[in-house]
Amino acid sequence: MQPKIKVEIKLNKLLHENERIDQLYSNDIKIIQNPEVFSFSLDAVLLANFAKLPNKDKSNTVDLCAGNGAVGMFMSHKTNGKIFEIELQNKLADMAKRSVLLNRLEDKIKVINSDLSKFNKYLAKDSIDVITCNPPYFPDLPTSKKNPNKYLAIARHEITTNLESIMLASSEMLKTNGKIYLVYRPDRLLEIMDTMLKHGLAPKKLQFIYPRKNKDSNMVLIEGINKGKKSGMKILPPIITYKDNSNEYSDYVRKLLYGK
Amino acid sequence: MQPKIKVEIKLNKLLHENERIDQLYSNDIKIIQNPEVFSFSLDAVLLANFAKLPNKDKSNTVDLCAGNGAVGMFMSHKTNGKIFEIELQNKLADMAKRSVLLNRLEDKIKVINSDLSKFNKYLAKDSIDVITCNPPYFPDLPTSKKNPNKYLAIARHEITTNLESIMLASSEMLKTNGKIYLVYRPDRLLEIMDTMLKHGLAPKKLQFIYPRKNKDSNMVLIEGINKGKKSGMKILPPIITYKDNSNEYSDYVRKLLYGK
Repeated sequence: MQPKIKVEIKLNKLLHENERIDQLYSNDIKIIQNPEVFSFSLDAVLLANFAKLPNKDKSNTVDLCAGNGAVGMFMSHKTNGKIFEIELQNKLADMAKRSVLLNRLEDKIKVINSDLSKFNKYLAKDSIDVITCNPPYFPDLPTSKKNPNKYLAIARHEITTNLESIMLASSEMLKTNGKIYLVYRPDRLLEIMDTMLKHGLAPKKLQFIYPRKNKDSNMVLIEGINKGKKSGMKILPPIITYKDNSNEYSDYVRKLLYGK
Repeated sequence: MQPKIKVEIKLNKLLHENERIDQLYSNDIKIIQNPEVFSFSLDAVLLANFAKLPNKDKSNTVDLCAGNGAVGMFMSHKTNGKIFEIELQNKLADMAKRSVLLNRLEDKIKVINSDLSKFNKYLAKDSIDVITCNPPYFPDLPTSKKNPNKYLAIARHEITTNLESIMLASSEMLKTNGKIYLVYRPDRLLEIMDTMLKHGLAPKKLQFIYPRKNKDSNMVLIEGINKGKKSGMKILPPIITYKDNSNEYSDYVRKLLYGK
């Protein structure tokens, strides 16, 4: 057992300016967050919960657009294999690396600070069992109103990557019948499914998240299979975020966040 | 006011062997049904409720694959315009015609006993504001197990029509920005959306029906726009058919069926 003082010194080094440690209680993961750069949100928790990871020791999972590494860490208990987190932004990749150390997951999770289209500098083609990705949601149009904060703008808008690049890289990385899990906005559902199909990733399962039971869906979880057939779509049960007439999370979401 | 005896004589002529009259209580429509030929089900009620009809006197609405005419009659109160019900099977078209008389809707609803691909014998191209359709759900594969009853087999399998013919005819019939409303099975969601897009019908709204709140969806309602853009999909609130742990309809569905 380590003396308490040592842990405190380590923790101080782990945190940079404006950073704090948030905890996902349901699986006891601590994440270094910086609201000025990037914070994980419910999307990441839902995606990590949705993805099915191969349990075997030799499996490879990749989280693309990894941000501060939340998704990879949240699902780390689901596999004995390796998880690679690919993040372009240096500052975010650095936060992810420190969170990995904080959770003592350095033997399982490797953070790769790279453009996802250059993945083959680090990972072989056709070598990945599962990909997860929480892509930027908004197209980078000349007219789109972007956050003046560069980090947040890149996380939300297709400035440094887009659906096309993500699906191309994914189809190259994945083994035949490898799976891809995505969280996205329903208003671009046709576009994301089209781009997936174009690259041989067949959408197989959709699960819609509705903020309240009488509201339009504001998020969708998508499972696709590399080189899968086009038929046989499944629409999983609805997920409702909040209880009726209150700002309390539904039982389902509360359990995902707090474990009870 | 007509003497009672006269109505009874009329009613006796209206019904053929094995037929009975069912009532949709929520809008007081009587439908001649024959379980050996075709009966309307919840699909028809949901579709008629989902469709938005133009109220103006000069509007034209078409129900394709009309069966015994249930969908057209269920939504007749929503428009002052005309409704055309196109049904290929003579026996079903005949039942629909008699139901129209029974409900005294003969000034509003015309039943057309025709193959939908020959619609232009009866209706002009680019003349229709709204199309509704509850298509056969299952592909007509050599391996598919079909109902030995010809009427039921044709209603369920793509024997006399298919998605391709339906979307082709619909895109020819509809005015620019005319709407199409469909009820379908989610397992062929990609296929139906693909076929729609191929014919310039952009899916715009989806609404999923789940038998229970923790079950996969078993039906989907789709709204498409003729010559619409591909972006901006909306996923409407979930519809749950049954209450938890019971065979009672949910409040939403009970209201659609019984009006209270």
